[in-house]
Amino acid sequence: MSRPPYDHVAFIGLGLIASSMCHAIRAAGWDCTITGTARSAETRDIAREIGLCDRVTDSAAEAVEGADLVVLCVPVGAMGGVMEEIAPHLKPGATVSDVGSVKGAVIEAVTPHLPDGVWFIPAHPLAGTEHSGPRSGFATLFQNRWCLMTPIEGTPEAEVARLDRFWTGIGANVDMMDADHHDLVLAVTSHAPHLIAYTMVGVADDLRRVTASEVINYSAAGFRDFTRIAASDPTMWRDVFLNNKAATLEILGRFTEELFALQRAIRTGDGDHLFDYFTRTRDIRRGIIDAGQDTDAPDFGRVGP
Amino acid sequence: MSRPPYDHVAFIGLGLIASSMCHAIRAAGWDCTITGTARSAETRDIAREIGLCDRVTDSAAEAVEGADLVVLCVPVGAMGGVMEEIAPHLKPGATVSDVGSVKGAVIEAVTPHLPDGVWFIPAHPLAGTEHSGPRSGFATLFQNRWCLMTPIEGTPEAEVARLDRFWTGIGANVDMMDADHHDLVLAVTSHAPHLIAYTMVGVADDLRRVTASEVINYSAAGFRDFTRIAASDPTMWRDVFLNNKAATLEILGRFTEELFALQRAIRTGDGDHLFDYFTRTRDIRRGIIDAGQDTDAPDFGRVGP
Ligand SMILES: NC(=O)c1ccc[n+]([C@@H]2O[C@H](COP(=O)([O-])OP(=O)(O)OC[C@H]3O[C@@H](n4cnc5c(N)ncnc54)[C@H](OP(=O)(O)O)[C@@H]3O)[C@@H](O)[C@H]2O)c1
Ligand SMILES: NC(=O)c1ccc[n+]([C@@H]2O[C@H](COP(=O)([O-])OP(=O)(O)OC[C@H]3O[C@@H](n4cnc5c(N)ncnc54)[C@H](OP(=O)(O)O)[C@@H]3O)[C@@H](O)[C@H]2O)c1
Repeated sequence: MSRPPYDHVAFIGLGLIASSMCHAIRAAGWDCTITGTARSAETRDIAREIGLCDRVTDSAAEAVEGADLVVLCVPVGAMGGVMEEIAPHLKPGATVSDVGSVKGAVIEAVTPHLPDGVWFIPAHPLAGTEHSGPRSGFATLFQNRWCLMTPIEGTPEAEVARLDRFWTGIGANVDMMDADHHDLVLAVTSHAPHLIAYTMVGVADDLRRVTASEVINYSAAGFRDFTRIAASDPTMWRDVFLNNKAATLEILGRFTEELFALQRAIRTGDGDHLFDYFTRTRDIRRGIIDAGQDTDAPDFGRVGP
Repeated sequence: MSRPPYDHVAFIGLGLIASSMCHAIRAAGWDCTITGTARSAETRDIAREIGLCDRVTDSAAEAVEGADLVVLCVPVGAMGGVMEEIAPHLKPGATVSDVGSVKGAVIEAVTPHLPDGVWFIPAHPLAGTEHSGPRSGFATLFQNRWCLMTPIEGTPEAEVARLDRFWTGIGANVDMMDADHHDLVLAVTSHAPHLIAYTMVGVADDLRRVTASEVINYSAAGFRDFTRIAASDPTMWRDVFLNNKAATLEILGRFTEELFALQRAIRTGDGDHLFDYFTRTRDIRRGIIDAGQDTDAPDFGRVGP
């Protein structure tokens, strides 16, 4: 077993992200104690049954006792409450981090409760699936994905570097940026796309003149891709939107503007406008495939020769 | 070799759909002659090189000579012109069909050129990938996908049944509906989702405050799914929107209405509205998976244990 960046890691919340981190820590071969807890007895029992942690505790206070790294893996809106609860029980010198999809609001909610001599280093792994809960995790989730860290002023560089080593060790590429920029970038690459997908699925579900079975059977023509994203956890996504209002609304504003321009082009029969628009969007796909962030297989590899 | 529904099938246009149909006809083991042509010499040469047809001809007139079934596999806006060109060369009693993504406008463009004693049976296989051209086809593309047929009045039932046998023989499930309803259903399950995906990718591409490399590297958080759809052929999609205006604009109108309601909920902090909306969209995903129209694997199987 190799020397881990932290000897004891504690997880608050044991869903998709935390359980994937547990598996990834084991896969890294680190000699590292893992403790954890979740809100419901049901999740804690499952975690015990499948041996996710060395010790699953009934309270967050017990879970963080003696931990060098505490990772908050709960919905964004629950971070502040959890931090308040664990604050008195943190080991001096410990690092608290999180995996929340929003950074500005989490920093605002967490830092007021931070005891002296404990560091809070916000982080966000850009990896996930539409599944959730303690059984949904797997060791390779972070492989070749990015983890964005948004350190706050006054955090020792050595501690930031240690958390960087942790994420790199479980497969991620790490990048640093400030929280505001993170929230804008994610509004574009994640939050707005999710809201749009939810909306499109909602519209299809609502339409009286097209039956549910038609929507379902004929979904392979494009729609089904939206339903995967729109099957993500409702609590997580409610919290994301409520906590990244400004950036999400800005991007959605830009989106509606462009959509109106395209609708107008359809109405007036401006084929050149449509053709030009549809041509330039191809390069981005190429870039994503070249960067190793998606498969080149047609239809995500769902079909094929 | 088994008895085919048609002894001689001709393709006009040799892209993704036509080349997949060629491969699927061979895979069905039918003793059937395949001829075909495409607009450019380049495509015809590739088709010859890879042996897509028994005979690739330089003109559409030659390709349809003696054919029992002629399938128009060109963009929707090109169907009328192609039909006009082949009309004098069709064998009496032949069936002309198409694979266009829009049905009403294609029927309007094609039927004026239809000679007496030749049948036009519109069809649309709901199968595809984001790739195009003669090399992109494969035999299993239509397996377990739906092919919608929208027969017009006066077509002999036996001929409709024969085309049904053809599509069933190459793997599809066949359903019948009228053209208007087809165009509305597809506006929901395909056309609106494509326009929305193109728009989202366009917005990301435009944004000056977020760099292209950020959009690319951090795309795995949702955005990359949109880029696959938005990498589809620009000509095909321009033609789809110009030829299914009314239904597409109706669905986009409903979409913007709902999007505004959700934006308002974000702005006013109405978490219950968001949560309820995100909860009911999950059932549709379940339905699609149960109907065999998508994979149950997390993240379309791109990641996993
Ligand atoms: N899923 C993704 O794609 C993804 C990607 C990157 C980042 N994230 C972020 O990662 C975090 C966790 O997401 P996840 O996908 O792992 O979620 P998940 O699978 O739904 O798990 C969430 C965990 O948080 C606990 N929890 C929920 N509400 C709580 C509350 N009010 N107080 C205390 N604990 C609570 C849950 O406990 P019970 O099981 O007992 O209910 C569960 O263990 C979120 O902040 C999310 O934004 C998610
Ligand atoms: N792709 C899908 O997902 C999908 C699914 C269902 C239905 N469809 C429909 O199927 C049809 C064909 O699509 P596809 O994906 O097979 O397209 P594709 O791969 O781009 O091939 C289109 C073919 O049409 C030819 N063509 C283009 N413009 C033409 C014109 N003005 N006159 C004569 N020939 C022309 C092209 O010739 P060159 O190669 O010489 O340019 C090419 O052989 C379209 O109507 C589309 O709406 C597509």
